[in-house]
Amino acid sequence: MSLSPDQLAEIEAQRASQTTTRRPGVPALEELLYRPIALLDHGFVRVIDYMGDDAAVVQAARVSYGRGTRRVSEDAGLIRYLMRHRHSTPFEMCEIKFHVKLPIFVARQWIRHRTANVNEYSARYSILDREFYLPAPEQLAAQSAANRQGRGDVLGGDEAAEVMALLRDDASRCYDHYAWMLNEDGADPARQGLARELARMNLTLNSYTQWYWKVDLQNLMHFLSLRADAHAQYEIRVYAEAMIKVLHAWVPACAQAFMDYRVGAVSLSAQMLAVVRRRLAGESVTQAGSGLSKREWDELVKMLAGDAGAN
Amino acid sequence: MSLSPDQLAEIEAQRASQTTTRRPGVPALEELLYRPIALLDHGFVRVIDYMGDDAAVVQAARVSYGRGTRRVSEDAGLIRYLMRHRHSTPFEMCEIKFHVKLPIFVARQWIRHRTANVNEYSARYSILDREFYLPAPEQLAAQSAANRQGRGDVLGGDEAAEVMALLRDDASRCYDHYAWMLNEDGADPARQGLARELARMNLTLNSYTQWYWKVDLQNLMHFLSLRADAHAQYEIRVYAEAMIKVLHAWVPACAQAFMDYRVGAVSLSAQMLAVVRRRLAGESVTQAGSGLSKREWDELVKMLAGDAGAN
Amino acid sequence: MSLSPDQLAEIEAQRASQTTTRRPGVPALEELLYRPIALLDHGFVRVIDYMGDDAAVVQAARVSYGRGTRRVSEDAGLIRYLMRHRHSTPFEMCEIKFHVKLPIFVARQWIRHRTANVNEYSARYSILDREFYLPAPEQLAAQSAANRQGRGDVLGGDEAAEVMALLRDDASRCYDHYAWMLNEDGADPARQGLARELARMNLTLNSYTQWYWKVDLQNLMHFLSLRADAHAQYEIRVYAEAMIKVLHAWVPACAQAFMDYRVGAVSLSAQMLAVVRRRLAGESVTQAGSGLSKREWDELVKMLAGDAGAN
Amino acid sequence: MSLSPDQLAEIEAQRASQTTTRRPGVPALEELLYRPIALLDHGFVRVIDYMGDDAAVVQAARVSYGRGTRRVSEDAGLIRYLMRHRHSTPFEMCEIKFHVKLPIFVARQWIRHRTANVNEYSARYSILDREFYLPAPEQLAAQSAANRQGRGDVLGGDEAAEVMALLRDDASRCYDHYAWMLNEDGADPARQGLARELARMNLTLNSYTQWYWKVDLQNLMHFLSLRADAHAQYEIRVYAEAMIKVLHAWVPACAQAFMDYRVGAVSLSAQMLAVVRRRLAGESVTQAGSGLSKREWDELVKMLAGDAGAN
Repeated sequence: MSLSPDQLAEIEAQRASQTTTRRPGVPALEELLYRPIALLDHGFVRVIDYMGDDAAVVQAARVSYGRGTRRVSEDAGLIRYLMRHRHSTPFEMCEIKFHVKLPIFVARQWIRHRTANVNEYSARYSILDREFYLPAPEQLAAQSAANRQGRGDVLGGDEAAEVMALLRDDASRCYDHYAWMLNEDGADPARQGLARELARMNLTLNSYTQWYWKVDLQNLMHFLSLRADAHAQYEIRVYAEAMIKVLHAWVPACAQAFMDYRVGAVSLSAQMLAVVRRRLAGESVTQAGSGLSKREWDELVKMLAGDAGAN
Repeated sequence: MSLSPDQLAEIEAQRASQTTTRRPGVPALEELLYRPIALLDHGFVRVIDYMGDDAAVVQAARVSYGRGTRRVSEDAGLIRYLMRHRHSTPFEMCEIKFHVKLPIFVARQWIRHRTANVNEYSARYSILDREFYLPAPEQLAAQSAANRQGRGDVLGGDEAAEVMALLRDDASRCYDHYAWMLNEDGADPARQGLARELARMNLTLNSYTQWYWKVDLQNLMHFLSLRADAHAQYEIRVYAEAMIKVLHAWVPACAQAFMDYRVGAVSLSAQMLAVVRRRLAGESVTQAGSGLSKREWDELVKMLAGDAGAN
Repeated sequence: MSLSPDQLAEIEAQRASQTTTRRPGVPALEELLYRPIALLDHGFVRVIDYMGDDAAVVQAARVSYGRGTRRVSEDAGLIRYLMRHRHSTPFEMCEIKFHVKLPIFVARQWIRHRTANVNEYSARYSILDREFYLPAPEQLAAQSAANRQGRGDVLGGDEAAEVMALLRDDASRCYDHYAWMLNEDGADPARQGLARELARMNLTLNSYTQWYWKVDLQNLMHFLSLRADAHAQYEIRVYAEAMIKVLHAWVPACAQAFMDYRVGAVSLSAQMLAVVRRRLAGESVTQAGSGLSKREWDELVKMLAGDAGAN
Repeated sequence: MSLSPDQLAEIEAQRASQTTTRRPGVPALEELLYRPIALLDHGFVRVIDYMGDDAAVVQAARVSYGRGTRRVSEDAGLIRYLMRHRHSTPFEMCEIKFHVKLPIFVARQWIRHRTANVNEYSARYSILDREFYLPAPEQLAAQSAANRQGRGDVLGGDEAAEVMALLRDDASRCYDHYAWMLNEDGADPARQGLARELARMNLTLNSYTQWYWKVDLQNLMHFLSLRADAHAQYEIRVYAEAMIKVLHAWVPACAQAFMDYRVGAVSLSAQMLAVVRRRLAGESVTQAGSGLSKREWDELVKMLAGDAGAN
């Protein structure tokens, strides 16, 4: 992370300024407010603002002043019920706004989630900082042999060194040429300088960009369930994992229900369910007799084995 | 408006509870928070929560920590620029949540705006109150002769009285039968009572419903520009007008730009613009020579005349 | 269903008109095109247009001209993989347009699905037909004792007769008064007639409306998974079930994957999965020792029992 | 554009395959179907599928079988009315699907339009082609002095040559290193090869990507009005302009209304309108007395002058 002393001072000044409000607030999230959580080599995510809390979900589900809203059940129980039965609209009643700094190739995955509001730093209008992502050695992995969109073993020895040198040198050179072409502030009076909207095309995809990203709780959880998944690329997963921590601070009951009914849950197809039923009834089932493809069978075996392994 | 003393007390209790926050706040909106603004005979709109202010729009447009954010222009100037040039994303960074009570036929227009979050009081799950909209005498208007979806003269005399009686009696009778069919709490032990999800079908479309409605500032302004328009039905327009007052309290700079560039603005088609240019050049233009249809010509004449009339 | 001979003739004329196209087509869906599928007492759903087929999903998933598209797997296999792993974007590449006639209280549930395009018949501009939904005797059910938003036993005897009479009489009377207030075509020259946008408020919620509804395949399946569910209200479920038949005609491979991975699938929470693992390992698990609430335990037992019952 | 002979043959084979359909079709668009329209140095846009035509907009606006739908006015007149009064939902009833090849920095602007369906070629899964955008000499422009996000004079002489050499060499080198790091097909048996999801970060932002992009007519026109605008970056504007030609072939009446009421139209703020009214009334108005800022005044003067200049 590379915030300047001025930027850090500005953040602390913002944190020092408190007001009173009639709105619901969450002390645990106030504690995190504005401060960047460092990610990757230069990235961060920080909470800029938020609206609502666990109670706001409950309040919306019941719509106040309606008869039948004076319920004995606990709020957490209702939240779990809503999550389990995919009643999504009450979760849309909370909103959060992040400031995120992230490599462009990660931003391109992220932006595919359309149900959010985004304001990105414009390289058409402004000049990007000289910052690009270089993987830590333990993240420099080979192509997976089993999964076309996954990683295999960590690279070692000469190959790792050569790859790191290429990534670093290419990103550096491209940025330096970007700056040279811009010729900002008439550095070289003999040249006009290339338009920013054109010069940016010379940057590599590991250059850092940043944006404000605002999303409701329902869509945030959907984003997190996909991007904190083991199949997500490491470089976006670290952002999702940091945001799950924010989730726990912000809406602890929703976060717990999310872990139980989304992150830790599995979906059994009709055929998989049939296999489970037969096995519970004492029957021994093989893939051949399961109605599942080899791939689905393997997925089922893995699901049922869990971390502990054998079944 | 028909809040019970209990409900009013609950609102005041909520208002009395204040906390400190690091989030930006808007005192003028805090002043309005939770209190219902009465509309029509039983409806209301009240602000439940909000996020962001004028400065949040500016902050998002600039994305903090970017070079080129050296605030030479005033915030209001930037907001006006964004509004004029339809840069919509910075306005999406503010969010507001309303609790609205409104007749069902109004709710059916309102819900057509899809870019909002909604939780409606469920007549499948709960029982609606005995409340229905009856127009004030000055709103009881005839069908417009000129506009297939507008109103003409106010009804008078016997016709007005008869219409009012029908509206009142039909809504009352339908509600009473709804309640009878429900047979709530085993009022009549000899009957089982009809399921709520069925009984509701007997209600008339002027029955009141209520919902939580959450929307970002950009989409709120779009909604308001359509629903505060003179062509909108009176019964939804009163809600839009009340919400425009909320807008001024919440984000005064955005609200002013909205009035100038949306509510008070006009759009000239290519052909209309050509007519204006010719007239400014001293040419006298008739409809026949304008390239405009009769209808478009009339619209242009009206635009250019303004309230003051002749041109 | 109440299409006039003229309307039916218009439909058949439209069916008779064929053209050639370079676009992909689906003969089984062409066979259904335009013809209404009758539902409830006056409702229908009919396919008006469509775009894409099973192959369009595969084509989008692979993006043509990219390396790595060497189709080693079958299209159906890829579709099943996409469905299983919730890769939703390829399913968004197909689109379908329906014309639906449905009671207003059903329309109000339906419209909550925001990711579709809708044009509804305007009762502000036009006059609704004299048609309202009356449940068949076997659908006239009591409130469920177990489920606040469900139905219990079918009503019988006097209660059923009384309820039916009320529903019929109230809807008829309200419609007749609606027509009287409109005073269409100056039926009574002594009256002006109430504006349509006002008169409509006198109609009951079982009045029929109609709309054009256009949706992509992904969002259609999401809609169907919620509305064809056993917990959905019967009056919307019949529409969903008819549309699932359309789905099978249109995109058979997607429809089969949808049945297996959505309709027939179950989701196990982290705690439920732990119980299943323990039972498969031979352990006897009780609710008390399961970590599940009573309600969740019952849901799990029901899932694992299936139709066959015992476990 | 760089389609291989195989790809071109595949396109022609697809074009040669015709079927009959009951769906509405548009011969002028069928003529364009599948064939790429070359843009920039390697890009293209081609129509893959479509649904609906001008008549489908009219049909949706009227919702068939409703009374009052047998109108004497021409379809084109209705379409113009809908466009003028921003009745957007009937235009949502048509849909079109494009296959687009475009530089990544253009794709990043494009994707900001969220109301579309997208499937992008995955560089996580597959390998990108060795293609990158290099501006034509007349597009190699300096930063605008007047507009922070615009272009000024075309670069000339040594500066142009140096910039072109840098852009070409950096993109080539980065791609070559990308390919080297991938070590595809075990080109160098001594190396494992870097995972695709990582290697792609070494590519420059002018690398070409491609996607399927599906959108409804309403949102397509909104996209085009922003991206065919003179303020849009040239590299995305050429795509928008090509798609406007497609629009004319597909829905000629909508396209004409779009040109008149969107592309060729102007919006006058409340203050601008007041100035126009005063001038039409014979008053001489200066900026000082106009209530407009210098910038707004200049915009107004430019609007009213038109291409012909003086006013």
